[in-house]
Amino acid sequence: MSATGRLIGVGVGPGDPELLTLKAVRALGNADVVAHFAKAGNSSNARASAQRFLRPDAIELPLLYPVTTERPSADPEYGTAIRGFFDESALRIAAHLTQGRVVAVLSEGDPLFFGSYMHMHVRLMKRFATEVIPGVTAMSGCWSAAGLPIAQGNDVLTVLPATLESAELVRRFRQNEPAVVMKVGRNLAKVRQALIDADRLNNAIYVERGTMHNELMMPLAAKRDDLAPYFAIVLVAGPWWQP
Amino acid sequence: MSATGRLIGVGVGPGDPELLTLKAVRALGNADVVAHFAKAGNSSNARASAQRFLRPDAIELPLLYPVTTERPSADPEYGTAIRGFFDESALRIAAHLTQGRVVAVLSEGDPLFFGSYMHMHVRLMKRFATEVIPGVTAMSGCWSAAGLPIAQGNDVLTVLPATLESAELVRRFRQNEPAVVMKVGRNLAKVRQALIDADRLNNAIYVERGTMHNELMMPLAAKRDDLAPYFAIVLVAGPWWQP
Repeated sequence: MSATGRLIGVGVGPGDPELLTLKAVRALGNADVVAHFAKAGNSSNARASAQRFLRPDAIELPLLYPVTTERPSADPEYGTAIRGFFDESALRIAAHLTQGRVVAVLSEGDPLFFGSYMHMHVRLMKRFATEVIPGVTAMSGCWSAAGLPIAQGNDVLTVLPATLESAELVRRFRQNEPAVVMKVGRNLAKVRQALIDADRLNNAIYVERGTMHNELMMPLAAKRDDLAPYFAIVLVAGPWWQP
Repeated sequence: MSATGRLIGVGVGPGDPELLTLKAVRALGNADVVAHFAKAGNSSNARASAQRFLRPDAIELPLLYPVTTERPSADPEYGTAIRGFFDESALRIAAHLTQGRVVAVLSEGDPLFFGSYMHMHVRLMKRFATEVIPGVTAMSGCWSAAGLPIAQGNDVLTVLPATLESAELVRRFRQNEPAVVMKVGRNLAKVRQALIDADRLNNAIYVERGTMHNELMMPLAAKRDDLAPYFAIVLVAGPWWQP
C-alpha cells in the first residue's frame, strides 16, 4: 500500500465553519484532493463550511448526483442510477489515490451518519488506507441552537427519516420518546400530520439550516406552510421537557 | 442581564483533544470559570480532553457526583440525591455568573445529548444568557474509529441506554435496525444476552474509550468477559452491513 494515497472522510459539521474540529482543519490543510458531493446545479454545503480551510492548490473533485435524493430508495430505477453514480465516483477518487494523493471527502455533519462518504468508504476500504474524522452532526447543531436537551437518563432516542410511511411515523411517535426527524423536505405535511395523530405536535421544533447564518427555527405548530428544504430537521422533545 | 455573566455548555467531543471544534477552543480560551462533572475519586474525562485549551488563570470548578450514575433513575433515593446535587451545582455556577463571569461547563461529547450540562441549562437558562456549543458525540467517535457506516438511506437509528430491562432490549434489537447502546458498564452481560436472543450478536462491535489513546475495540462476540467501563459503547450494525 506504500505507493498509494489515503482516503479521508472528513466530517465538516452542521454548517457553521467554527464547528469543524481541529482534526478536520488539519486534514483539509494536508489534502491534495478535496471531493464533495452536491446536487447538480447546487453548490455543496459541505464545501461552503470547509472553504476557508482548503489549500489554494488543492485539486477539487465535485461529485454531482444524477438524481434527486428525495425519492424512496426502494424505487429500482433510482437504485440503479445512484449505484452507478457511486461506482463512478469511487473510480474517480481511486485514480487520485493510485497517484499517491491524499483525498479528503467532505461530509456534512458526520461521515458515517447518513452521509454519502460511506458509499466511497465501502468501495475503497479494501484497496486503500482510510481514515474517518467524525464531525458534529446536523441534529446536534439543531438541538444546541434550540437549547433543547434531547435525551437524558434512561431515554431512548430514535432518529427517523421523514421518508417513512405515514403509519410507521405515527407508530414511532406514539412511543412517546424523544425523536429526530431527518430529510424533512417535501415530507413535512406528512410528518406534521403524524405528530398530530400521535398527539406530539406541541413537542416538535422545526429547524432549517441549523447553526448557519440564515438559520430558521420555530415550534412546528407555529409554521404556517409545509415548505421545507431537504435538510430541514424536526426535533421532537421527550415527554419530560417543558420549554 | 447586562451585569451578569454567560453560561456556555461546551461539547469537548469523544476524547481525542483534536476532536474539539474551533468554536469550543475559542470558548475555553475566553472562559473565566471552567466547571466539570466527575465521579468523586475520578478525574473528569472532559477536563482531560480540554486541558490544553484552558486559560492558566481560569477558575476551576469541579462538580463531584455524590452517587454513582449507573443506578436506575427510577430509584427514588437516587433521584433525590442527584437532584440535590444538581441544585447545589447550579447555585455554585450562579454565584460566578452573578459576578459577571463567563462560565464554561465542559461536556463529554455533546452537551444536550445525555450530558449533565443540561441539568445546569434548565436551572439557569431563565436567569442568565446561555449558549450551547455542540460537540462530536462519543458514538460518532466510536463508529468512525470502527469504520462502520451506522445509518444510511431510510434507516432508523435507535440510541438505547443499556440500563433498559432485558425484555425491552430484546424487543428493540429485534426491530433489525442499526442501534447504539450507551452506558454499557455493568450491563454488558445483559446486553450481550439480549443481542443473542435477537440473533444480532454478530452485528455488534464493542468500543471502549473510542478515539482516546488507549481505545479498545473488538467484535462483541470476541470479547471474553463482561467487564466494561460505564462509558463503553456497543454499536449494532444495520442488516445490510457486511464487514
